[in-house]
Amino acid sequence: ATAFRASEHQHIRYNPLQDEWVLVSAHRMKRPWQGQVEPSLLKTVPRHDPHNPLCPGATRANGEVNPHYDGTFLFDNDFPALQPDAPNPDLEPRPGLSTGVAPCPQHSQALYLCHPSLPPSPPSKVMCFHPWSDVTLPLMSVPEIRAVVDAWASVIEELGAQYPWVQIFENKGAMMGCSNPHPHCQVWASSFLPDVAQREERSQQAYQSQHGEPLLMEYGRQELLRKERLVLTSEHWLVLVPFWAVWPFQTLLLPRRHVRRLPELTSAERDDLASIMKKLLTKYDNLFETSFPYSMGWHGAPTGSEAGANWDHWQLHAHYYPPLLRSATVRKFMVGYEMLAQAQRDLTPEQAAERLRALPEVHYSLGQK
Amino acid sequence: ATAFRASEHQHIRYNPLQDEWVLVSAHRMKRPWQGQVEPSLLKTVPRHDPHNPLCPGATRANGEVNPHYDGTFLFDNDFPALQPDAPNPDLEPRPGLSTGVAPCPQHSQALYLCHPSLPPSPPSKVMCFHPWSDVTLPLMSVPEIRAVVDAWASVIEELGAQYPWVQIFENKGAMMGCSNPHPHCQVWASSFLPDVAQREERSQQAYQSQHGEPLLMEYGRQELLRKERLVLTSEHWLVLVPFWAVWPFQTLLLPRRHVRRLPELTSAERDDLASIMKKLLTKYDNLFETSFPYSMGWHGAPTGSEAGANWDHWQLHAHYYPPLLRSATVRKFMVGYEMLAQAQRDLTPEQAAERLRALPEVHYSLGQK
Ligand SMILES: O=P(O)(O)O[C@H]1O[C@H](CO)[C@@H](O)[C@H](O)[C@H]1O
Ligand SMILES: O=P(O)(O)O[C@H]1O[C@H](CO)[C@@H](O)[C@H](O)[C@H]1O
Repeated sequence: ATAFRASEHQHIRYNPLQDEWVLVSAHRMKRPWQGQVEPSLLKTVPRHDPHNPLCPGATRANGEVNPHYDGTFLFDNDFPALQPDAPNPDLEPRPGLSTGVAPCPQHSQALYLCHPSLPPSPPSKVMCFHPWSDVTLPLMSVPEIRAVVDAWASVIEELGAQYPWVQIFENKGAMMGCSNPHPHCQVWASSFLPDVAQREERSQQAYQSQHGEPLLMEYGRQELLRKERLVLTSEHWLVLVPFWAVWPFQTLLLPRRHVRRLPELTSAERDDLASIMKKLLTKYDNLFETSFPYSMGWHGAPTGSEAGANWDHWQLHAHYYPPLLRSATVRKFMVGYEMLAQAQRDLTPEQAAERLRALPEVHYSLGQK
Repeated sequence: ATAFRASEHQHIRYNPLQDEWVLVSAHRMKRPWQGQVEPSLLKTVPRHDPHNPLCPGATRANGEVNPHYDGTFLFDNDFPALQPDAPNPDLEPRPGLSTGVAPCPQHSQALYLCHPSLPPSPPSKVMCFHPWSDVTLPLMSVPEIRAVVDAWASVIEELGAQYPWVQIFENKGAMMGCSNPHPHCQVWASSFLPDVAQREERSQQAYQSQHGEPLLMEYGRQELLRKERLVLTSEHWLVLVPFWAVWPFQTLLLPRRHVRRLPELTSAERDDLASIMKKLLTKYDNLFETSFPYSMGWHGAPTGSEAGANWDHWQLHAHYYPPLLRSATVRKFMVGYEMLAQAQRDLTPEQAAERLRALPEVHYSLGQK
């Protein structure tokens, strides 16, 4: 009998943070690809376009004029998913949840559960990273990225004063549904813990009560010892391809210290974060010599009125979910089997980490000069 | 204060079958779309292409020659995700699961859980629906679709004799990662219950023990009374947009009778299924006058060695997950907030059902003649 090799033989892995399984079938990378090829990137984003609502000085859909900002710029989303002052739905019996955070488990079997967002209405914001439309985070300087980190911490502080969950996320690239090339992210606050947050809450809570320490602290320590899934390490941070990664080049960004939320980061940790982000995103761009598309976002301990409770089982982290698989134009499709049965990946997390590790930390577009 | 209208005001809804929440923010349909537009469809698929490995008489990657089939045709996937005769991984402690169906809950907190598929190796198959490459299910005749239903039932019977889960799924359209226009689906068997199957198992089991009847039987009955989410009804079947639908025009196809698995369907139920599928898929194509992309698949009670256990809480059903939102080229992106926090939709399930209901049952491409 042949010996098991993860890179050759299928197996399933468990995601202890989100309580999900992934089917790993690395040999599938050998099959030919005759499916959809993504349109290649429009290379010519103008640095400033007065008709782009995210640019300094531009007029937005609601008639407001942007300031001539020269760093980051935060404003209210003109088309929010979580909209101000929505009245209460008068649908089916909706026990639990309307008072706040988690839906109550004893009602989880009702067939028509529906809840409004509570007033005051949760805000939804857009944050521009830079005044120029033709840069991306890896092409920004470390101090410029540090300003973004500070702006993230402030918005968590500001909205977290009132809302239990403040989701910062960036959709980068048209492939990720991003409709504006200007470097930006979004911030959606909510009066409830969203699904993924609830799963992470449950898992981290259970791990802490069983093992007496935060799941992600122990996991980070393990990965530092094992090394095979590490992509980058710095004084204060780790970047790794998690053992249970679903997207081909998915990574997890973790502080080494136990930090529950973004605003707790020290100045040194923020500088170091800016620097490791620049390196990671440069590697991403270098992988297929393209502006690498992804969705990313931050998860930290819940906020709002219960921020003072014991959330020590939480460890701050960011997830990067990039779709590309084989080249700048061939992506992984999460369809069929993935939607109906279980996530599936075509190369092992260890292979992905090795490829990312080997890539230079200088951006390909600069090296060519 | 304004009255709540689901079509105007955001709210969250619960999916009792898969234990997930969705954020409904219908007012978002009003925002302009400046993002990615999908390439329009290649209209000229040849009826027969000797180089297409799915065509009758063609030679496949492994050198095998397809028969000159004139109905459905089932063969082994040349690039299976679940590959034959994989040895056991020798990774971290992997308690539970290796003996079969569900991962044991007491080990769900381990950080490195990994399991091989047990030998004998789970097969992965491709099923062609028709000898011609230029047809799709809605353009096939009812007897031809009935033959597909019979082939589905047979493959569940055949593989279900050995494997606890046999996932039939169809990825239709390049947008859904389908790399071959020839009408076909796939069948992946596994020695474990995949993630989604486990969620449906838990929910249906819990509902049955609380209410003494299958969740989807009661749900179907409720929807027949409420009517607003119904798309099609026939003597033996229902098609509806579930209350908790995530994809814009997602539907659920349910038998009216309590049926646990595809092979249990009577001949009359199979004919009626072929007919209602043709109607549903015709409506889908008519919605944006395009060959409507989707992933679909069947879920029924687990099979394999425990097929004889009590699975009465299961009700057979098919899920249709189509990505299009606004037109033949503008899709819904499940990115950022959806990946990091919670699924979100832009029109209500009731609005989607209403639009689907209003569409003709004659295919637009035939009407034009
Ligand atoms: O097997 P195919 O059609 O080549 O591949 C397609 O379906 C699979 C099963 O849903 C997915 O894993 C792939 O990402 C997708 O491209
Ligand atoms: O808000 P945007 O950038 O217009 O829209 C994008 O991000 C949202 C949040 O992830 C998604 O719901 C949309 O499908 C996507 O197109």
